[in-house]
Amino acid sequence: MASTDVELATTATESSKTAPEAGYNASARTPVGPPPNYFRIDFLLRLLLLASAVSALVVLVTSKQTKRFATGLPGVFAYVERDAKFNYSPAFIYLLVALAVTCLYSIITILSSCALMSKPAPAAKILFALILTDTLMVGILSSATGTAGAIAYVGLKGNSHTNWNKICNNYGKYCRHIGSSTAVSLFASIILVVLVLVSAYSLSKRSYH
Amino acid sequence: MASTDVELATTATESSKTAPEAGYNASARTPVGPPPNYFRIDFLLRLLLLASAVSALVVLVTSKQTKRFATGLPGVFAYVERDAKFNYSPAFIYLLVALAVTCLYSIITILSSCALMSKPAPAAKILFALILTDTLMVGILSSATGTAGAIAYVGLKGNSHTNWNKICNNYGKYCRHIGSSTAVSLFASIILVVLVLVSAYSLSKRSYH
Repeated sequence: MASTDVELATTATESSKTAPEAGYNASARTPVGPPPNYFRIDFLLRLLLLASAVSALVVLVTSKQTKRFATGLPGVFAYVERDAKFNYSPAFIYLLVALAVTCLYSIITILSSCALMSKPAPAAKILFALILTDTLMVGILSSATGTAGAIAYVGLKGNSHTNWNKICNNYGKYCRHIGSSTAVSLFASIILVVLVLVSAYSLSKRSYH
Repeated sequence: MASTDVELATTATESSKTAPEAGYNASARTPVGPPPNYFRIDFLLRLLLLASAVSALVVLVTSKQTKRFATGLPGVFAYVERDAKFNYSPAFIYLLVALAVTCLYSIITILSSCALMSKPAPAAKILFALILTDTLMVGILSSATGTAGAIAYVGLKGNSHTNWNKICNNYGKYCRHIGSSTAVSLFASIILVVLVLVSAYSLSKRSYH
């Protein structure tokens, strides 16, 4: 009994090859109509990711501040110029590299998202690959954000136990740049988590359970 | 023509409710047999995650080191005791919290993984929820690893630009504990990425494309 029904259903699918929508109705286990395509949301989120990564990168790179300090010698009116740059700390170089990688990654995936937006149903393999790479990017960018945030916090508050003095009282503009860049990186990390969410949701909607 | 086929297929599915395997064959778009169940790999990975999180936590908490320093005053043979503890730095407190959350999370998901291991095909919603929470945990744990790593690096190398002195030449055991804990946290983050991968792969194998 069951095998006859299966044959009938297979015939139904084969006869309606020109109308893909009918094929999805062939089994009650599969949802009605083509699987949902969330690549418009994906595309907009990736645009937002690119914008935030670029802005964080620009704010980080332009964080240089030069300040004059009196030499402190009595009777000598000379100044010493000391500057604060982001590349004086390996943590900020790591953040720079992570943001640059995020920029490149978002440009590549924006192009792929553009190409897939018009298709009725992109392959599950593509969604799987996107989840994989997005999760890797979450790991890279959030660890870079944590790294930069830790150094920025020591710069802001200092640490009396280790005698690490705070530097933000002298280099206010520098610290504002670093802090803003870290905050925008955190925002970009959250966007990446949402992107994983969108791809996984899209994949779960295509599942036959 | 198409609507008649749909009716036939629906009857086929209804009549074969007692044999779920026949239902999967009802459409040529769905793969043959029940969807794969990767909860054994999932279970083992989550056990490894729990083990690594617990060991990183223990190594972090036991990182206290007390050291005697000479007062430096000439003719005075007195010592000053100074200790290094993980809770002197907010970065390590964040790592502690993140590792504790990972321990709790892995215990909860080990139980759910145990329950789902024996079922032939867990629901797509569960896999989606696992991807979501695992990705969030990747973000939390990798940022905590980055934070602790940044402070550990400054402790190891110092920073001449900001006059932050290194402390690992005095507190060797403390630094080894912190470094080991950070390394094991990094390993736990990688396991979480692999867990996302397994769930997403499982979900993509259940897709009808």
